[in-house]
Amino acid sequence: MTNAALAELVTELPEGTVVTDPDILASYRQDRAADPNAGMPLAVVRPHRTEEVQAVMRWASANKVPVVPRGAGTGLSGGATAIDGGLVLSTEKMRDISVDTVTRTAVVQPGLLNAEVKKAVAEHGLWYPPDPSSFEICSIGGNIATNAGGLCCVKYGVTTDYVLGLQVVLADGTAVRLGGPRLKDVAGLSLTKLFVGSEGTLGVVTEVTLRLLPPQNSPCTVVATFDSVEAAANAVVTITGKIRPSMLEFMDSVAINAVEDKLKMGLDRNAAAMMVAASDDRGAAGADDTEFMARVFSEAGATEVFSTSDPDEGEAFVAARRFAIPAVEAKGSLLLEDVGVPLPALADLVSGVEKIAAQREVMISVIAHAGDGNTHPLIVFDPADEAMTARAQLAFGEIMELAVGLGGTITGEHGVGRLKRPWLANQIGPDAMELNHRIKRALDPDNILNPGAAI
Amino acid sequence: MTNAALAELVTELPEGTVVTDPDILASYRQDRAADPNAGMPLAVVRPHRTEEVQAVMRWASANKVPVVPRGAGTGLSGGATAIDGGLVLSTEKMRDISVDTVTRTAVVQPGLLNAEVKKAVAEHGLWYPPDPSSFEICSIGGNIATNAGGLCCVKYGVTTDYVLGLQVVLADGTAVRLGGPRLKDVAGLSLTKLFVGSEGTLGVVTEVTLRLLPPQNSPCTVVATFDSVEAAANAVVTITGKIRPSMLEFMDSVAINAVEDKLKMGLDRNAAAMMVAASDDRGAAGADDTEFMARVFSEAGATEVFSTSDPDEGEAFVAARRFAIPAVEAKGSLLLEDVGVPLPALADLVSGVEKIAAQREVMISVIAHAGDGNTHPLIVFDPADEAMTARAQLAFGEIMELAVGLGGTITGEHGVGRLKRPWLANQIGPDAMELNHRIKRALDPDNILNPGAAI
Ligand SMILES: Cc1cc2nc3c(=O)[nH]c(=O)nc-3n(C[C@H](O)[C@H](O)[C@H](O)COP(=O)(O)OP(=O)(O)OC[C@H]3O[C@@H](n4cnc5c(N)ncnc54)[C@H](O)[C@@H]3O)c2cc1C
Ligand SMILES: Cc1cc2nc3c(=O)[nH]c(=O)nc-3n(C[C@H](O)[C@H](O)[C@H](O)COP(=O)(O)OP(=O)(O)OC[C@H]3O[C@@H](n4cnc5c(N)ncnc54)[C@H](O)[C@@H]3O)c2cc1C
Repeated sequence: MTNAALAELVTELPEGTVVTDPDILASYRQDRAADPNAGMPLAVVRPHRTEEVQAVMRWASANKVPVVPRGAGTGLSGGATAIDGGLVLSTEKMRDISVDTVTRTAVVQPGLLNAEVKKAVAEHGLWYPPDPSSFEICSIGGNIATNAGGLCCVKYGVTTDYVLGLQVVLADGTAVRLGGPRLKDVAGLSLTKLFVGSEGTLGVVTEVTLRLLPPQNSPCTVVATFDSVEAAANAVVTITGKIRPSMLEFMDSVAINAVEDKLKMGLDRNAAAMMVAASDDRGAAGADDTEFMARVFSEAGATEVFSTSDPDEGEAFVAARRFAIPAVEAKGSLLLEDVGVPLPALADLVSGVEKIAAQREVMISVIAHAGDGNTHPLIVFDPADEAMTARAQLAFGEIMELAVGLGGTITGEHGVGRLKRPWLANQIGPDAMELNHRIKRALDPDNILNPGAAI
Repeated sequence: MTNAALAELVTELPEGTVVTDPDILASYRQDRAADPNAGMPLAVVRPHRTEEVQAVMRWASANKVPVVPRGAGTGLSGGATAIDGGLVLSTEKMRDISVDTVTRTAVVQPGLLNAEVKKAVAEHGLWYPPDPSSFEICSIGGNIATNAGGLCCVKYGVTTDYVLGLQVVLADGTAVRLGGPRLKDVAGLSLTKLFVGSEGTLGVVTEVTLRLLPPQNSPCTVVATFDSVEAAANAVVTITGKIRPSMLEFMDSVAINAVEDKLKMGLDRNAAAMMVAASDDRGAAGADDTEFMARVFSEAGATEVFSTSDPDEGEAFVAARRFAIPAVEAKGSLLLEDVGVPLPALADLVSGVEKIAAQREVMISVIAHAGDGNTHPLIVFDPADEAMTARAQLAFGEIMELAVGLGGTITGEHGVGRLKRPWLANQIGPDAMELNHRIKRALDPDNILNPGAAI
């Protein structure tokens, strides 16, 4: 790459769009996966409009410069890790939104944060359900690129279920519109769905049409503690076979204690597991649901069960669950896992993780979107301790192998990124890998878009 | 194609799998689109297992013989129309199902009918929601290949929302497993979703893992008649902005009268529109919803409103709505449209269709999954009357152009097939067309799978 070539890009774009200040570049090298091997980008570009993204991609293709799309950089799998000599294409300046209450859709640029989308549509009396725990700090474009999940997806589904249309800029700079504000549309291949979850490897999302719902009802919440993980896991299976809770979250004893250390809300420090469940069915039905879940928890052997229809009281427990990651993080650096298993394997996964923790002598806390079988083992380590860091990394891989061995997945919602790529083939097998590569080659033959990530 | 080559395929497969009896071949030439230009296949193959499908595809690829996958042949867009000298690959012998109550999933072979899937899972206390009106006669494989919709999808989504995993056989005979019984899984590109709705052009679905729900609650139903379509359409928009009905169906005056001719259930023959709506929210919430919808209907100017929580009484009206297609069909042959528009354009679409009917001098009845903006204009014609048939065909195209002009789609749930292919590019544009072709070429470079269909 010559300076002359970069200068060409600079002149094509509004002033300030291309950034080469080394201090600023440094802040775009990593996402929350904090990959120590992150590269140093040639430049960061911060376009404002689709046309500018097209210019960037045309330039990158012509000059064979790799481009790493970046939203808010909260990703946990290194999908937005910078590449030496590449561009980081940040969507942070693309923040428009327009809400259409009649079609119940919002057209959003990718850089808007999830919380900002939720807020803007709530002002029109509507609801955008997907709620990753990071919703206050992650971008909607990043959510689409990773097909983000969250707490309510046990009932309401994940990001892809709310994406009606996309505008994407391909590697060669072509801007393509897929889908639109139509609730049902089967014209042509399901390309919108293909781009959701593609982690920046197939195109840059520059606009999205989101499906919105009428507002959620105020939920009833039930919290239960258990002296065994199996008991909690059994309750999950019983509940999801009968009703559709709007939340069904799990914390293990490490997480309970870490949260209690910080929040001092009187959680049972001796419990092996705590469940936070909710129903947002309206009126009596919601109360019936919490009563039912409370009964199932009791019958499964809960040591304590507490129900409330008070939204603030309920929210306190949800906040405790959301706070689990920062609370455990207070104990050291985290390697944040995201493995998923079929529901009946939940208890086996947790006990398997315990064994790995013991063998590798690292602390691992498990929290989970239990109703979906999606768990987050949080591996705590001290990065200054090289041997421990190495053991934590071994545990990271072993947990993925454990999950795949239980018929599970290496990633339920965070994506493969760069961190998990070595384990992907082991899960999906050589034929599905080849299929992934065929699609990638068809859309990005020169491997310009996020090379080394996801596939 | 030489007889020797076909003989090779015959010996590779169990006796009776390859059928060449001309009488039998004739019955596999068309689907419900009844394309008069359907070809005469070389043979029909009816494999029992994935391995046999692989053998068929390997043979077809080696001999460059096109293959048309076929489920139950109820498709309305000619996706399963036979090709001269090609194979028809019918899945009718692939009918296994196993239900897992703990993971709430079913693993199903493609030839099982939708109704049989519903019944098998209901025996385990579970529910498979997607309910195309044709559910008693269409195959689950066909549903997946078309991403079929239905009456309950206004609340519960379409087929793709229930597909967790697939086994597909590619053009070259490779069998690939995608996804699996995991509620959340973002490892690799969203290939499962890409194959759903691909209308047999990317691979043959030989097994599917379906997500199941706990049983649906008994719905409350409300029926309303209107003396204008606008009034009914306005009510739809108001309702869907506030609550999530489990059904929101529309019939125009032609359909009302056609149904009344047959069923004599006392429908208002003077009404311009009739709505059949339901809520399956539990207990009081469901009753509240129907009360709310009844009020909205009244305020929008309904001439008559009737609510019931009696399931049989409610089902009678749903059955009337389902019966609309056969009832209108009693008046002549049908060209069955499937256009969708954004909700606010519903009334414009219906009045535009009325104009086309008047201009082309054909009877057109509109029924609709109104809550999704997905309409089925039913064009009635006499195939013995050549001039009328030509006018009906003109109307068919004009309705698609009307829908696209209103920001809509040429197909909401039936698929593009062969009948609608000439209109696809007009809707999605040249760049999205090229993207479709790139994917198709990457997966089926010799264009063996369902050439001429969908894309
Ligand atoms: C405390 C914490 C809690 C979290 N909880 C959850 C959770 O509950 N559920 C969950 O799913 N995730 C969770 N995450 C992970 C993360 O927030 C999500 O993956 C989120 O979707 C990433 O959004 P982002 O804008 O930060 O994307 P980034 O990190 O910037 O990028 C993520 C990936 O998307 C690509 N990308 C970003 N924008 C675009 C675009 N416009 N076009 C194409 N590709 C693009 C990038 O190349 C990269 O591969 C959590 C993270 C943290 C730190
Ligand atoms: C009275 C009536 C009412 C209808 N109502 C609805 C409705 O409400 N909603 C709706 O969505 N549709 C409806 N349909 C259309 C039709 O029933 C659906 O499209 C259905 O999904 C087709 O299933 P099938 O098994 O008959 O498929 P077929 O007609 O045999 O094939 C349909 C398409 O799928 C492909 N295909 C079939 N099986 C496979 C496989 N295993 N692998 C790969 N490709 C395959 C074929 O090549 C073809 O392109 C209706 C049809 C009728 C006749």
